[in-house]
Amino acid sequence: MILQNITTAKGTNINIHIRNGKIASISENLIEFPPKEEILDASGYLLLPAFFDTHAHLDKTVLGMDWFYNDLGSNRIDRIENERKNRTSFGIDTFRQASRLMELSISKGTLYMRSHVDIDTDNGLKGLEGVLQAKEKYKDIFHLELAAFPQSGLLIRPGTYELMEKALEMGADIVGGIDPAEIDRDPKGSVHAIFQLAEKYNRPIDIHLHEAEELGAFTMGLIIEHTLASGMQGKVSISHAFCLGSQKKELVVPLLEGLAHAGITIITCGQPNTTSVPRIREVSDAGINICGGNDDIRDMWSPYGSGDILERIQFIAMKNYFRKDKDLEFTMKLCTENAAKLFNIEKYGPYTGNPATFVLVKARNISESIVTYPKERMVFCNGKMIAKDWAYLG
Amino acid sequence: MILQNITTAKGTNINIHIRNGKIASISENLIEFPPKEEILDASGYLLLPAFFDTHAHLDKTVLGMDWFYNDLGSNRIDRIENERKNRTSFGIDTFRQASRLMELSISKGTLYMRSHVDIDTDNGLKGLEGVLQAKEKYKDIFHLELAAFPQSGLLIRPGTYELMEKALEMGADIVGGIDPAEIDRDPKGSVHAIFQLAEKYNRPIDIHLHEAEELGAFTMGLIIEHTLASGMQGKVSISHAFCLGSQKKELVVPLLEGLAHAGITIITCGQPNTTSVPRIREVSDAGINICGGNDDIRDMWSPYGSGDILERIQFIAMKNYFRKDKDLEFTMKLCTENAAKLFNIEKYGPYTGNPATFVLVKARNISESIVTYPKERMVFCNGKMIAKDWAYLG
Repeated sequence: MILQNITTAKGTNINIHIRNGKIASISENLIEFPPKEEILDASGYLLLPAFFDTHAHLDKTVLGMDWFYNDLGSNRIDRIENERKNRTSFGIDTFRQASRLMELSISKGTLYMRSHVDIDTDNGLKGLEGVLQAKEKYKDIFHLELAAFPQSGLLIRPGTYELMEKALEMGADIVGGIDPAEIDRDPKGSVHAIFQLAEKYNRPIDIHLHEAEELGAFTMGLIIEHTLASGMQGKVSISHAFCLGSQKKELVVPLLEGLAHAGITIITCGQPNTTSVPRIREVSDAGINICGGNDDIRDMWSPYGSGDILERIQFIAMKNYFRKDKDLEFTMKLCTENAAKLFNIEKYGPYTGNPATFVLVKARNISESIVTYPKERMVFCNGKMIAKDWAYLG
Repeated sequence: MILQNITTAKGTNINIHIRNGKIASISENLIEFPPKEEILDASGYLLLPAFFDTHAHLDKTVLGMDWFYNDLGSNRIDRIENERKNRTSFGIDTFRQASRLMELSISKGTLYMRSHVDIDTDNGLKGLEGVLQAKEKYKDIFHLELAAFPQSGLLIRPGTYELMEKALEMGADIVGGIDPAEIDRDPKGSVHAIFQLAEKYNRPIDIHLHEAEELGAFTMGLIIEHTLASGMQGKVSISHAFCLGSQKKELVVPLLEGLAHAGITIITCGQPNTTSVPRIREVSDAGINICGGNDDIRDMWSPYGSGDILERIQFIAMKNYFRKDKDLEFTMKLCTENAAKLFNIEKYGPYTGNPATFVLVKARNISESIVTYPKERMVFCNGKMIAKDWAYLG
């Protein structure tokens, strides 16, 4: 099969020859004589590698279900309590719901995802079971990493630590954590417990850290210290990391140095409100890997979200006051090449010899693909078109 | 013609009977016997009044043109200088471009708009001429108010004041203004000049006020004083009004009291970054009319923007940390009923006896229409469907 006249990020036009699910070759001249293979004209489409969503919650979405009328209190703890108590009675079947959100993601070009899955003493491991089933179902086309996520607290609710152990035995890939001070009320103890699980089960870590300013900086310092002490450099991520958005240079600069030294990855979602979030250029310039993700998609936490990582890249770019093309191109990396580093994906991207896994988007350049996030897309996985125009073809 | 089985914001199902471009009647029962009139089934569609975009820049967009490679400096003045010097050489024909943005807006359900149009000594009145032609072309379906907008400064560039006079004589509806301190370097003089023009030509005022914190509060105070002194209560708007987003209560509270007393309308765009913007509940609760608009759409200022006011309503809601349904419903008012007050539109909304002008959106309720801003829409004007699924049918 030949995909003809594709636009590259550099502005050139190429043809991609696909054989046995791989990119057999890439040519530049237009094909004059019809070859034996099938030809698909991709004029006007931009070639992009398949996307990563490095921060998702597959077990939470209410996509396709009854409308969740949100009248919750405004604090994070209100949302946590509601979800733990009401997710079952509202009818969230995590296999069904994770499948829906995975198909939505695939339909828009996301083929790699890190999802957190709630582990708590009210719902046990039911949520994880459903998401693991969904992971298995889509394993040939969707690369999914799962973090066991003690959203209601790891230490403050007895029994959760043991459930986390079971979750890791069942197949969760990553040890999750949340606000060791604000939720667990014991920063040292919570960070210690997270690293203990990671060492025992030899798994990486991804901690939700919403704590801001001095408190977040303190907790982040503990995470850096534990990473170095346990030799886990390169295996720890911090999601949100709002404290890095502080305007206090004396607070942020030492953290950036520490994160770089400890090889910790930062994952941002660019919340489109006045919350301070990591300034992605500053983080990257400090030598830290920075990735991006969608976070909540139409769930009991948040009514928003389309599952489109291009739209999220737009949010992150807007949040960082980016308007220049080169800044938009940089932002794209958060959900492509930087994330591929986090996931240790070899043979990533549409190059000769790699799997024919990529996304074609109706756009003239990377910036335009981000600011228009158009419906006109074709998603290829191992040489097969698996989604078109926001419709999953599986 | 009958539109059948429409969902209302209250959750009921109704039929709308259209005759002579007006809503002849609204019934609740399903139509059992096929009547003589044409029937259109609108099951699954939510009935909304037609939308307002109260802050647009029709003369700036580069929609459908070559890509503008943005490598400008990061300050507002860099963007102002670039646009004044390069808008003509880049090939912006304001009739063509305003027409494109109006059709895009109509395609998504916006039938009322307030647009600013640059007036400066480099480009003279050419921009306004083109936008006035476009206004005339779509006048039967698109209600357009134009503000003469001295973006490069009213006083600081000699000759601009005289051009503003000509613009108002030519048909600009509103006297615009921009940052009397930061751009004009003379807050008292600039505010005075704006009100002088308004009084001489008997026009309302709409001032862009990006100035933040104490400086913005000072300028806003001058605007309030001038409004009261000139008896222009109810005829003045302030766009952006970032100073109202200050965290300093002692700064904001007196401003809110003054704005309410002077009957000044606030127009917000909910910039999805950490810029402080008016907190819309607080503004409304103070008795001030608050409206919303898209601002830049794919222009030399900003690469972003879809022209979809439902997406903008989402941005404003997100910016205000809204997650509750009742807060989303409130946000919708900024681009519907609150704006209708600003525009003095009588017979607004889909009620019996009013023009059959409304939007049908594939959604179960107002919140869902905001968070999904779906492509599935039907836009009616005076009984005729003028747009469907983001396509203008004109």
